[in-house]
Amino acid sequence: MLPRLELNSQSAVPLYRQLHEQIRSAIRAGGMARGERIPPTRELAQSIGLNRATITAAFDVLESEGLIRREVGRGSFVIGTATEQAPEMISFSASRPSEIMFPLDEFRATCREVIDSDDAAQILQLGPASGYGPLRRHLLEEARKQGTAGEDDDILVTSGCQQAFDLIQRVLAAHGETVLIEDPVYPGLRNAFLRGGARVIGMPVGREGVDVDALGALLEKEKPRLMVLTPNFQNPTGSTLPVESRRTILMLAKRAGVIVVENDLYSELRYHGAEVPTLKKLDEAGDTILLGSFSKIAFPGLRVGWAIGPRHFIARLTEAKEASDLHSDQLSQAVVLRFAESGRLAAHRQKMLTAGSLRLQATLSACAKELPVGSSFTKPEGGMNVWVELPKSLDASELATRAERENVSFLPGRYFAVTRPQLQGLRLSFAGLTPENIRHGLAVLGLIFRTEQQRAQRKQSGEPAPALV
Amino acid sequence: MLPRLELNSQSAVPLYRQLHEQIRSAIRAGGMARGERIPPTRELAQSIGLNRATITAAFDVLESEGLIRREVGRGSFVIGTATEQAPEMISFSASRPSEIMFPLDEFRATCREVIDSDDAAQILQLGPASGYGPLRRHLLEEARKQGTAGEDDDILVTSGCQQAFDLIQRVLAAHGETVLIEDPVYPGLRNAFLRGGARVIGMPVGREGVDVDALGALLEKEKPRLMVLTPNFQNPTGSTLPVESRRTILMLAKRAGVIVVENDLYSELRYHGAEVPTLKKLDEAGDTILLGSFSKIAFPGLRVGWAIGPRHFIARLTEAKEASDLHSDQLSQAVVLRFAESGRLAAHRQKMLTAGSLRLQATLSACAKELPVGSSFTKPEGGMNVWVELPKSLDASELATRAERENVSFLPGRYFAVTRPQLQGLRLSFAGLTPENIRHGLAVLGLIFRTEQQRAQRKQSGEPAPALV
Repeated sequence: MLPRLELNSQSAVPLYRQLHEQIRSAIRAGGMARGERIPPTRELAQSIGLNRATITAAFDVLESEGLIRREVGRGSFVIGTATEQAPEMISFSASRPSEIMFPLDEFRATCREVIDSDDAAQILQLGPASGYGPLRRHLLEEARKQGTAGEDDDILVTSGCQQAFDLIQRVLAAHGETVLIEDPVYPGLRNAFLRGGARVIGMPVGREGVDVDALGALLEKEKPRLMVLTPNFQNPTGSTLPVESRRTILMLAKRAGVIVVENDLYSELRYHGAEVPTLKKLDEAGDTILLGSFSKIAFPGLRVGWAIGPRHFIARLTEAKEASDLHSDQLSQAVVLRFAESGRLAAHRQKMLTAGSLRLQATLSACAKELPVGSSFTKPEGGMNVWVELPKSLDASELATRAERENVSFLPGRYFAVTRPQLQGLRLSFAGLTPENIRHGLAVLGLIFRTEQQRAQRKQSGEPAPALV
Repeated sequence: MLPRLELNSQSAVPLYRQLHEQIRSAIRAGGMARGERIPPTRELAQSIGLNRATITAAFDVLESEGLIRREVGRGSFVIGTATEQAPEMISFSASRPSEIMFPLDEFRATCREVIDSDDAAQILQLGPASGYGPLRRHLLEEARKQGTAGEDDDILVTSGCQQAFDLIQRVLAAHGETVLIEDPVYPGLRNAFLRGGARVIGMPVGREGVDVDALGALLEKEKPRLMVLTPNFQNPTGSTLPVESRRTILMLAKRAGVIVVENDLYSELRYHGAEVPTLKKLDEAGDTILLGSFSKIAFPGLRVGWAIGPRHFIARLTEAKEASDLHSDQLSQAVVLRFAESGRLAAHRQKMLTAGSLRLQATLSACAKELPVGSSFTKPEGGMNVWVELPKSLDASELATRAERENVSFLPGRYFAVTRPQLQGLRLSFAGLTPENIRHGLAVLGLIFRTEQQRAQRKQSGEPAPALV
């Protein structure tokens, strides 16, 4: 998707250059994929209120850089990406596994086993809305073994976790109900509820996850219908909720009659430290709804996720699912199942843990070394993200634009904002980068941040500002 | 899904037997799939207001027939299906291709080519919300060649046509807007709009599709935001809208400012007669939204469909899609693309046309021979469905229950009802049956229908009713 364009006609940077840079950033950060169409100049001119020549000028530069291709009468298409067109670009922008880590050979072997099996015809036929039976049974059995599904729980296979958010919104928050979500939070989660018309309120998240002291008052004041939490390695902060806080939250939720949705995407990616039991496991009443997926470990492009929760609630979600898209793709469900049952998932996870541990360590060391005085950052024990808070004099959005010019990208805090503006916050997604690139990228960021900090200090003290290094 | 249970405590048939028969029908008709969970007796007892012993009795019979398996503490699971447990069952219930027609070898070869290609890593990574680029370009080019996409059109890949209905509902009818749909209609279409809170009004459908004379008044009176039509081989009636009616509808829609959505699932399955141009092709203003899919020709279990329409509208649908499930499964998108580009889709379609033609012919001949005096039925030139209207003295729902006992299933008209109750209507889905089974099934139905008609006539004339043959 084209990013939300923020053009400043007062800036010294020409408008066509601003436009060019913002689209380039989106392409390089992976926000616009190869093959995606960019609206034609006429349409863009109308929607952002620039004249067409300005837009044409920006497109000329994008084309000369090999990032887009213009086709007469058809519009323009993204043809370049970070890896192909700008091998030097280091992107901390995407919370997803590195493509070079994909277990391609194992995936191919798994696919072959699935398509050669006797189940192939069944996979190609329409299936049940609740999901491919053998996958549902496997996941439910695993969850029961781990103590995250009880006797009264059932499961629904969804098209990734995003669809689980969407279906929960439809079933529980279709009429303007209040929903508590973490602040900052993964934008896809926030948008699913906002688009559905829910009243969305942020729960402040710190280094130890949601602020439990603030939560009691929030529950009393806002009377939410449900709350959505990512207790392990939250996106974007990487923070993990301690077990005592989990117990307190469950108690508060029960007392307030609030449904708890646990987004459990990252807990399988713990690189060190002791496991903390899920809310679902701690919840003796059994009301918590647990969302899971293999996307962060294996193949994000195969859209398979799931929701585990009380049977009566899963039945309602399943009805909403049926009206929404009949059922999830069965080929991918069968492939994901075979990948898990064959032991390949567990073996691959070990590789991801080894690589992730090195990447996390490289990120934390480089943060300690490179970030300007007055910065702080989270120190997760797993997952894909570290959250940085810069000193008050710095604006993360501005710095992101500068960093782009030096071929390093990250997402500033405002992308993840719910109630608080997160001006000094930024997310570093490290899982897709080698330790070497992490060190190099953070060295570049550190230099930019420190230089800008000095500039800001001189400005404040009245000294003339030197050119940016 | 468990069917909507209709239990009559006044009936001579014991309640447990009614319950047993309705669940058995659902399993045999494919409405409940293998592995699906049936709610526990306690839960069912509450929701349908029967005592638990009655439900246990029904489950006992289902278990003894090998249709379900009960697991202590887990509930009951469907284990039998029509083909396995009741080889003699002939199902006219599902509008989908026959599994024995699935091109398994070609599917396997296609999959191998996809997973062995260099695109595999890209397929496994997160992709754009608008769909897998190479598939989008292929489909749009094909549509342009056929004249069904213009210069200002764009495309969105959806998870089957069901998701296209759902996204259109969200973008155009999320606030109680009025939507005109055909009556009778495919229930998935009706439910997508009803669940989204739209005001749904039926447009009467006859042998020649939507009644154009009635439509003008309906548009004036109901002031709809959009109308959804299936002009070719409509489900459930099989009717096709003549070209003059298409032109009139476009003119009426334009005058009333109503958006036209064309559900074009079946037009590739024309067995004889001349092709009729799509609404999208006839629409000079270019505002029509065309929905397509390969599900009815190739693999329904791979959830790939698409919507083609004006660029600005597709952009809004794409935003809704992103909030809904990020993007559709990429493995299936790549497989479907390769299947089409390799020429296998075209070759397979020829086989489907040959088989479909024989099946349609068998259905129409058997209908003419077997249906009771006073019946009528549509005579489609393609698709998967024939619609029967029985004489007024007969009730299709009652007959469906009787037919089940003789191992023939079909869906009575009330499943497809919007405004009119469709008591005498029924759908015969013939595409999944061999001509032999079609003839045998319709011979059984004919006997039941005629016998019941005689019974009704005797009853009316005061004669004592004999036992049902």
